[in-house]
Amino acid sequence: MKIYDKIVDLGKRRGIMYPSFEIYGGLSGFVDYGPIGSRIKQNIEDLLRRHYIVSDGCFEVQCPTVSPEDIWIASGHVGSFSDLLVECEKCGEAFRADKLLDEINIASEGKPPEQVKALMDENNIICPKCKGTFCDPYEYDLMFSTSVGTGAKKKTAYLRPETAQTTYLAFKRYWEYARKRLPFGVMQIGHSFRNEISPKQGMIRLREFNQAEIQYFLDPRDKSAPNLADFDRKVTIQDRQDIVHEDVSIVNAVETGMIKIPFLAYQLAKAMKVFEDMGIYGTRLRLRQHRDDEKAFYSSDTWDVEYESEAFGKIELVGISDRGEYDLGRHNEHSGSDMRVSFEGEKFIPHVIEVAYGVDRPFYCVLESCYRQEEDRSLFSFPTSVAPFRAAVFSLVKKSGIKEKAEDVFNKLKDQGVFVIVDHAGSIGKRYARADEIGIPVCVTCDYDTLSEGTVTIRDRDSKEQKRISVDELIDEIRG
Amino acid sequence: MKIYDKIVDLGKRRGIMYPSFEIYGGLSGFVDYGPIGSRIKQNIEDLLRRHYIVSDGCFEVQCPTVSPEDIWIASGHVGSFSDLLVECEKCGEAFRADKLLDEINIASEGKPPEQVKALMDENNIICPKCKGTFCDPYEYDLMFSTSVGTGAKKKTAYLRPETAQTTYLAFKRYWEYARKRLPFGVMQIGHSFRNEISPKQGMIRLREFNQAEIQYFLDPRDKSAPNLADFDRKVTIQDRQDIVHEDVSIVNAVETGMIKIPFLAYQLAKAMKVFEDMGIYGTRLRLRQHRDDEKAFYSSDTWDVEYESEAFGKIELVGISDRGEYDLGRHNEHSGSDMRVSFEGEKFIPHVIEVAYGVDRPFYCVLESCYRQEEDRSLFSFPTSVAPFRAAVFSLVKKSGIKEKAEDVFNKLKDQGVFVIVDHAGSIGKRYARADEIGIPVCVTCDYDTLSEGTVTIRDRDSKEQKRISVDELIDEIRG
Repeated sequence: MKIYDKIVDLGKRRGIMYPSFEIYGGLSGFVDYGPIGSRIKQNIEDLLRRHYIVSDGCFEVQCPTVSPEDIWIASGHVGSFSDLLVECEKCGEAFRADKLLDEINIASEGKPPEQVKALMDENNIICPKCKGTFCDPYEYDLMFSTSVGTGAKKKTAYLRPETAQTTYLAFKRYWEYARKRLPFGVMQIGHSFRNEISPKQGMIRLREFNQAEIQYFLDPRDKSAPNLADFDRKVTIQDRQDIVHEDVSIVNAVETGMIKIPFLAYQLAKAMKVFEDMGIYGTRLRLRQHRDDEKAFYSSDTWDVEYESEAFGKIELVGISDRGEYDLGRHNEHSGSDMRVSFEGEKFIPHVIEVAYGVDRPFYCVLESCYRQEEDRSLFSFPTSVAPFRAAVFSLVKKSGIKEKAEDVFNKLKDQGVFVIVDHAGSIGKRYARADEIGIPVCVTCDYDTLSEGTVTIRDRDSKEQKRISVDELIDEIRG
Repeated sequence: MKIYDKIVDLGKRRGIMYPSFEIYGGLSGFVDYGPIGSRIKQNIEDLLRRHYIVSDGCFEVQCPTVSPEDIWIASGHVGSFSDLLVECEKCGEAFRADKLLDEINIASEGKPPEQVKALMDENNIICPKCKGTFCDPYEYDLMFSTSVGTGAKKKTAYLRPETAQTTYLAFKRYWEYARKRLPFGVMQIGHSFRNEISPKQGMIRLREFNQAEIQYFLDPRDKSAPNLADFDRKVTIQDRQDIVHEDVSIVNAVETGMIKIPFLAYQLAKAMKVFEDMGIYGTRLRLRQHRDDEKAFYSSDTWDVEYESEAFGKIELVGISDRGEYDLGRHNEHSGSDMRVSFEGEKFIPHVIEVAYGVDRPFYCVLESCYRQEEDRSLFSFPTSVAPFRAAVFSLVKKSGIKEKAEDVFNKLKDQGVFVIVDHAGSIGKRYARADEIGIPVCVTCDYDTLSEGTVTIRDRDSKEQKRISVDELIDEIRG
């Protein structure tokens, strides 16, 4: 079985994640996080908070997902955030025109509908499903639309396609909160929505997905990164000409001009650290600079951290971009609200360097990176901070008060506020296997000696090594 | 200034919460959580997780907010989750018909459109805004609608008006996860949406709001609550006849039949404890049983925990209801998926007791309950677990290395993974005042003795008492 199929199987069987709305036949692009998956996802989000809010002092905000049209007109999403579709006149199925042309190696991205139609006609492209003919290509809005209110006050609204724009709106409030000093970062973790035409890549392309985007607001005169050296490391870099450089130090990449903006380089280095802390293999990660023809026109430089997935090939896990004054400038213009600040002798619109994490993709990549198939077992070698439970507590046998003792140890651990489970069913071997399969780092077994001496056996998930410690030591160790 | 105005003012000024989309003129029923508010909201959600996931062993799941029509047809929301509106033929403004009639003391709730129209006509009700005449009453769907996909696969979808239904769908997966044993609880924390016609009560009635709903799946033969006595307390109860009983023990209320279902009584008692842990005054809470004419027909018993708000009067903070087999039964019928389980010799559809918390309302009530206006300061006396930061670190003066020492203490605290801030600006008195205003429980001041002796002054927010401790002791104390 391929690793992807193993993960999908475990996902369903062990309550990690599974398709949404299954009993109603499902709807592609939507996923449920189950009891185990919710814990892992929560841990990934908390890890991002520890790195960006606690350590870096970013502010966290939470804005609505339903948001009025004005915002998306200002941001440029209305009218341009769309795919060109063709619909079969016979079976009604819709397809992305560029994907159909791509299959016969014709590039059409960014071409206007008439040219795309001409290319479709020239190449006799028909419906791959029923061989029917296609209608003319039309623009298909990737934003989910809805409306708020009724009567005279009815307003068109969209489900946000990204958290970022909703973060920008209250910039002047953050400016006050930051006591009128730059730089500062504002993070938002939450749902975003894209009405993809027919998403088929599981958690890699969802219609409702989770993001963790950080907007750093900077003085355009100062994009330095005093702490860059602390995060330096050797990485693989694919530059804007698609040339691959192996084993480059990030500090060195800045010195040689390969990465022009130190603050952006710092964010790339930090993101590498974040992914490694999640349990994603560093060796499968690389930095990729956007080519000039794919980069947004307002961005002076854009980079992705990519992961080489066994199942999906290269996946973008975070995009880091210097967006200049574009976003605040657009809202300044469209809202009429002054987004300029006075700082150190100048009045200007702050620049933004955006760090745009997905959450679902890293979630999947953590599973893929941490999955191990050994001779007699399968396991997830999650770092402790990501594992769904900190420990599993077992009773060797249910009799002689050992079950009660195990419950007592379990309760003591719970009282520390940590996520733990207790399991009394089946052989100890089977219970180890069940715990390994969902990546619990430590199993704790209570036996006769627990009753007489107050000690337990703890067994390490990865090494399978066992040792005997007292219940008090256990609690200290679990508290960390 | 009234307490509500103080909170709204602090909310904006200190980054707690403020109206969304302000720069585009706002849109009622939407709120942003700012840097301080996000921390408090996160803490409230974590406190719910500690009580229900860690302590009670509930499972947490996360389901999409966009969900296909089928679900909401099955649940009964499509067609019935609506208000009867009238629209002014002159100015276009829409109003809830029942509210207009209510103002002249005519009850119309639940009456069909023709009868409501007759009542409106009889009483010559015209537009309160422009004196125009109204169109006929029409059903206004409270669910936000959208659609997913295009072409032959286009599907009507709704933004969920509650998390509960999306939780039910994967019941059979939870049943497997729970190893086919009852009871178990499944919690979901997330956004829900109601397209209220003109919400005017700030955070009490939002169009996009946060919920934390727990569905307990039970064997209909066993709704006992072995731990009820541990949570017993004296409460005020308003029964289904609207009779108020003061100072009733919950155990006693079960014994006398005032609360018929022990498991439901246990959940009411637990919710009281949860709210007190959040910092909401127990004396302002009471239990209210739904009257027979307001209770859903399928519910055998429904209760609210209500808070007496200075600004809004009585507010429902959590609704706890025995919903019987209604929800799983509906999905069983509509999806064709068998929701029955075989357990202890019987095959049945499990019953559900739902514990439906709002998050935004408790958030507001925590602010209201914890707000203190003293002679020389205002403060929020948040419990430590709810406070936005665990501590604020100050330097007495910036010179002589004291600022660096304070940064060092700050970094040591951050390394524990706790949310702390550092502040070097203004007099110590002003810094205390700023910290009090956002409810930081402890202020830590570094001075000359910190350099020479390694001690700091810690000052308690509520008592203003100061004491001198070592940096090591401080770290131990903050770690908790």
